[in-house]
Amino acid sequence: MLRKTKAMNRLKVGVLGATGAVGQKFIRLLADHPWFEIAAVAASSRSAGKPYAEAAHWIEPIPVPEAVAGMTVRACEPEALPEVDFVFSGMDAAVAGDIERRFAEAGIPVVTNARNYRREAHVPLLVPEVNPDHIAQIAHQTFDPSGRGFIVTNPNCVCVPLVLSLKPLADAFGIDSVVVTSMQAVSGAGYPGVPSLDILGNVVPYIGGEEEKIMWEPLKLMGELQADGTVQNSTIGIHASAYRVPVVEGHLLSVLVKLATPGVSEQDAQQAYADWQSPLAGLDLPSAPEQPVLLYDEPRFPQPKLHAPNENGMQVTMGRLRKAGLFDFAYTALGHNTIRGAAGGAVLNAEMLVAKKRIRSRN
Amino acid sequence: MLRKTKAMNRLKVGVLGATGAVGQKFIRLLADHPWFEIAAVAASSRSAGKPYAEAAHWIEPIPVPEAVAGMTVRACEPEALPEVDFVFSGMDAAVAGDIERRFAEAGIPVVTNARNYRREAHVPLLVPEVNPDHIAQIAHQTFDPSGRGFIVTNPNCVCVPLVLSLKPLADAFGIDSVVVTSMQAVSGAGYPGVPSLDILGNVVPYIGGEEEKIMWEPLKLMGELQADGTVQNSTIGIHASAYRVPVVEGHLLSVLVKLATPGVSEQDAQQAYADWQSPLAGLDLPSAPEQPVLLYDEPRFPQPKLHAPNENGMQVTMGRLRKAGLFDFAYTALGHNTIRGAAGGAVLNAEMLVAKKRIRSRN
Amino acid sequence: MLRKTKAMNRLKVGVLGATGAVGQKFIRLLADHPWFEIAAVAASSRSAGKPYAEAAHWIEPIPVPEAVAGMTVRACEPEALPEVDFVFSGMDAAVAGDIERRFAEAGIPVVTNARNYRREAHVPLLVPEVNPDHIAQIAHQTFDPSGRGFIVTNPNCVCVPLVLSLKPLADAFGIDSVVVTSMQAVSGAGYPGVPSLDILGNVVPYIGGEEEKIMWEPLKLMGELQADGTVQNSTIGIHASAYRVPVVEGHLLSVLVKLATPGVSEQDAQQAYADWQSPLAGLDLPSAPEQPVLLYDEPRFPQPKLHAPNENGMQVTMGRLRKAGLFDFAYTALGHNTIRGAAGGAVLNAEMLVAKKRIRSRN
Amino acid sequence: MLRKTKAMNRLKVGVLGATGAVGQKFIRLLADHPWFEIAAVAASSRSAGKPYAEAAHWIEPIPVPEAVAGMTVRACEPEALPEVDFVFSGMDAAVAGDIERRFAEAGIPVVTNARNYRREAHVPLLVPEVNPDHIAQIAHQTFDPSGRGFIVTNPNCVCVPLVLSLKPLADAFGIDSVVVTSMQAVSGAGYPGVPSLDILGNVVPYIGGEEEKIMWEPLKLMGELQADGTVQNSTIGIHASAYRVPVVEGHLLSVLVKLATPGVSEQDAQQAYADWQSPLAGLDLPSAPEQPVLLYDEPRFPQPKLHAPNENGMQVTMGRLRKAGLFDFAYTALGHNTIRGAAGGAVLNAEMLVAKKRIRSRN
Repeated sequence: MLRKTKAMNRLKVGVLGATGAVGQKFIRLLADHPWFEIAAVAASSRSAGKPYAEAAHWIEPIPVPEAVAGMTVRACEPEALPEVDFVFSGMDAAVAGDIERRFAEAGIPVVTNARNYRREAHVPLLVPEVNPDHIAQIAHQTFDPSGRGFIVTNPNCVCVPLVLSLKPLADAFGIDSVVVTSMQAVSGAGYPGVPSLDILGNVVPYIGGEEEKIMWEPLKLMGELQADGTVQNSTIGIHASAYRVPVVEGHLLSVLVKLATPGVSEQDAQQAYADWQSPLAGLDLPSAPEQPVLLYDEPRFPQPKLHAPNENGMQVTMGRLRKAGLFDFAYTALGHNTIRGAAGGAVLNAEMLVAKKRIRSRN
Repeated sequence: MLRKTKAMNRLKVGVLGATGAVGQKFIRLLADHPWFEIAAVAASSRSAGKPYAEAAHWIEPIPVPEAVAGMTVRACEPEALPEVDFVFSGMDAAVAGDIERRFAEAGIPVVTNARNYRREAHVPLLVPEVNPDHIAQIAHQTFDPSGRGFIVTNPNCVCVPLVLSLKPLADAFGIDSVVVTSMQAVSGAGYPGVPSLDILGNVVPYIGGEEEKIMWEPLKLMGELQADGTVQNSTIGIHASAYRVPVVEGHLLSVLVKLATPGVSEQDAQQAYADWQSPLAGLDLPSAPEQPVLLYDEPRFPQPKLHAPNENGMQVTMGRLRKAGLFDFAYTALGHNTIRGAAGGAVLNAEMLVAKKRIRSRN
Repeated sequence: MLRKTKAMNRLKVGVLGATGAVGQKFIRLLADHPWFEIAAVAASSRSAGKPYAEAAHWIEPIPVPEAVAGMTVRACEPEALPEVDFVFSGMDAAVAGDIERRFAEAGIPVVTNARNYRREAHVPLLVPEVNPDHIAQIAHQTFDPSGRGFIVTNPNCVCVPLVLSLKPLADAFGIDSVVVTSMQAVSGAGYPGVPSLDILGNVVPYIGGEEEKIMWEPLKLMGELQADGTVQNSTIGIHASAYRVPVVEGHLLSVLVKLATPGVSEQDAQQAYADWQSPLAGLDLPSAPEQPVLLYDEPRFPQPKLHAPNENGMQVTMGRLRKAGLFDFAYTALGHNTIRGAAGGAVLNAEMLVAKKRIRSRN
Repeated sequence: MLRKTKAMNRLKVGVLGATGAVGQKFIRLLADHPWFEIAAVAASSRSAGKPYAEAAHWIEPIPVPEAVAGMTVRACEPEALPEVDFVFSGMDAAVAGDIERRFAEAGIPVVTNARNYRREAHVPLLVPEVNPDHIAQIAHQTFDPSGRGFIVTNPNCVCVPLVLSLKPLADAFGIDSVVVTSMQAVSGAGYPGVPSLDILGNVVPYIGGEEEKIMWEPLKLMGELQADGTVQNSTIGIHASAYRVPVVEGHLLSVLVKLATPGVSEQDAQQAYADWQSPLAGLDLPSAPEQPVLLYDEPRFPQPKLHAPNENGMQVTMGRLRKAGLFDFAYTALGHNTIRGAAGGAVLNAEMLVAKKRIRSRN
């Protein structure tokens, strides 16, 4: 998946929750990673002790990477992963809280997809192209007095395409309020997740807890870092309605946005996207998309089946940017929920942390 | 499909565009109709002259009704259907305009699902539970000086669940503005319609011409009948975004609404639905649902697969009525697009026209 | 669902496993049954004590029947259902064995969809149109010395369309061997059943334990009743391959059959279907289809979406009956797996047991 | 998609039928081909003269390759493509016959996916791993007296996984007869192809003309090349039943096979697959899969969604190889229908023709 390879001693990573749907995605994305090498896989006591290929009900459309297939699954405890430089966490929220804290306390950086610490005052909720400066929050964390161990989170899978698609408008004109209706893929619910009887040829108008995240997380992501390491949340108004659709990968958003600046023309808005520069440009992060946000002209685009895989699932695509009566603009946005919106987002977070010297080899 | 039967001499109806997807639905709905009897089926010259069962590529999940299977398809001309009391039209817009006018001019009432005359000044755009008084527009039509022939239309398939779900709120509090994102079934595109390669496991963010209809037709439907037989359109603000989803039947709407009355509580809003009375109550129309609008408490409801068939596809269902930050309320609404939103809506229009003595036997 | 109503004191039935997918189907099918009245619903200890509408995660496309919604779910014990004349069982095989035996021992007839007793020497495995004489096995059961309590089973959901579609050929020409590839709907796996991630846009080539049932149960169904109340299994050769497809209801079978009689023409084979008479004709059973097996001429028929609902899901449909090179004939067969192949089949079994005076009112 | 790159002057290829579904797949597969360079795209008169990106309704999940997007579509005539060394044809059978003949007569090799010449006495029907020696038929073709122009075909998309999965058994034990039920993806019908209303949540038991191809083409593919350049067809008995399922890519086959050798054990059969060597090994063809046939142990494999993409869509996968009562063995096989079974198969054919010096640069 990676275009940019460079010779280096690869960092040793552990994957927590390795047998689950997000854990599998981590393993796939890290299979040939130029900077990171999977040194250990860990999961619940039900899986611990078994070879990975046997413990995991593998659902990715490629074989289990050979280097991992034979690894013995370990317990999710810092002592069980002594050799890792940091860990990725794909654990369920039900158990992630305690375990992640213990790793951070043990001096091991935790780059997690779980939601448990997203609202913690000093834990960055990070989309590298949107709020890279929030990394500075790490210095204020108290998990590990030595400063080595910390926790960094990535947001809910809808929030990533939402804030990335809003960012060029936010930078150019400011944003007053946002209405979003999401049409979310079943992979967002993990495995076994959504029963087929519920979703085949159907749409389900409710996803428990989802709308709250979509209405809160962007406020922190687009908030202002303060001197004390906290974030002053944005005051943008957001309303979200979340629907489940029979799509495998790719959350599609119907978005309406009111800008803080009146009178912005359709041409100006499109120009904002053309002009916008990713703050990651030049960092040469292996998983960073060339173009984090792509705006299509073709009205039938983007579509989950066609465009979720763009740039290895790391690009957010948009279309139908148009003036909207009650608001200023309407558009469609799409993000690959289990890559850009989950494991891939965490990998990119880790890459930025390495580039910013926040994660280093322990040897 | 009909609960209420009464002995009467059934009116003779013709179905125009009888071989298409909407035409087939008309034939299915009229198969055992207590008031109407299919006397003739008509279609394009490609089908005319053939037995119906051979001319139609039948896609309904019941066999072709026996009474129709052997009928010879006729041409879509008034002269070819001398015995009918009125016609239903399921023709494509490409041809419906001229043909429907010729039938009206020939003194034959036309109850159509086609969009051609929806915006005509004196043609009613009708949802019987919403604007039954608009029937009076017929008297101002000039197709047929004798007054026998006229045209009545039903709206776009999204507009029906939209206006029916808004109606109780409109009556109780008035409506300021509405935002709707529709997730529309493939049957809305007719047959062959949407290619499976486009929609299997996918969502398409564009349906040509659809959003314009959703943003205009409710204004006429909720408009005020004037003394001159025109309608003063409502000034409600509407924004619509239309998406195609892999569902067979049932358009699902994510709706936000701002009321004209401030401070309405969730309880008040729910009470408005409980209190609302259909103007059709007491008319005993065979296709009228007992309860035109049903509001579910269960947050996972309504769903197209489960609830589009409610009350033979004639009921609009709603759920998740809740306070919404930027607006007043958010909710989900669902309507069966090819029954309530198309053929069934037209049948109900005809039933009301019969009850109101606008359609009578010609003999 | 029922065409034939007759005035009678309805028998009181209990539904065991009432909250599961099969149990829900029983409740739906019995909602307006002319002979049976749901007197009690029972389920596992997790549900017992709750109102039914709260205990069941209802997945049927109609509301919970009012008469049942408020019933308190009882424990699955004979003592808890003192008023019932007999019970239907939709329990999982994991628990059905013991519980069903206890009901039979308590003198309560058990009409079950579970597989536990299908291979028992004196328990009828019954498809009423195929082997009605096997009812005589009941007299040889020893569960209840008084003879009141007994167990009757219906077969696996694939076996029903398989044996019904073979029956006219078997009667006319005898059958040597059969090859079947089944394409099975997800509802066959119950709820939550098949994860959507496994089946959306996919086919799964394995269903645990299924092929063994398809290769064995037809041998008993088509076997000869012996004087000692056992059945001498048929010696037909059967090979089965079972696949899961993204269909909601309706198992479709691709069948090859070699007849015991050589040289049968396509016309003769078709005539066998035209001539075949159901042994249920004249019994006037409420759930019996008018035509248990329907053979279509149209090569694109039958299809699960269009024809599984035929005759309220009780008809088996067939198509493409044609000469086949290595065998004698090939054809497609379809059966509604959760109605004809499960709950509906059990209801029909019970109706025949009533007609044959094997089930009576206990009062 | 290509692992093996080598420096060479790339051959100039034309793509006939470039705007259709198969043509688009050719363009995608050739985008970075190490041996071939798209020099021209041609299509029907409706598209000729337009830029490719405008003429094609692009449905591939990657953008139109830049090198092709701006090319002007040409007419499908030899004179319009003077610079090409050979052409790939993805044309519809309705027009392919005449056009392909004219290209061959003009001295331009034609590597086609169309079915028109598959049964011609001297036209190879080619799967390179199965019957590479059939290339010798080319010398007997009379289209072009100079010997430069000729036609080579690849088989129907079901036949490729069928013959590849049979080949190791055929080589080791000989094959007596085969029964296959295919579950075919919608992409096999091209674009727009199968209407979504026909296939969403459904299976269609008939694909016009398909079974005839599946029952005939393998006989030629597994036939013996004769001295006169004809092929003596195999006498294997084959019966095929073709079904359409709601899958996007990947035809899945349920296969029964009777071997010419009696008493082969399951272990022997598995060993035959382990031992089998592709005749392409060592040729280093860019599109050749490392392992043309992969046999899974896991009973739930292969699945279209997971395994059709294996080895860039060029690998045939198998599973559940097991003893079968009436036959010798049953198994499941899977092939990517639009890559391995269509455009990718043709590209591999062309690569072998280049490796065998049958196609050369004309300059």
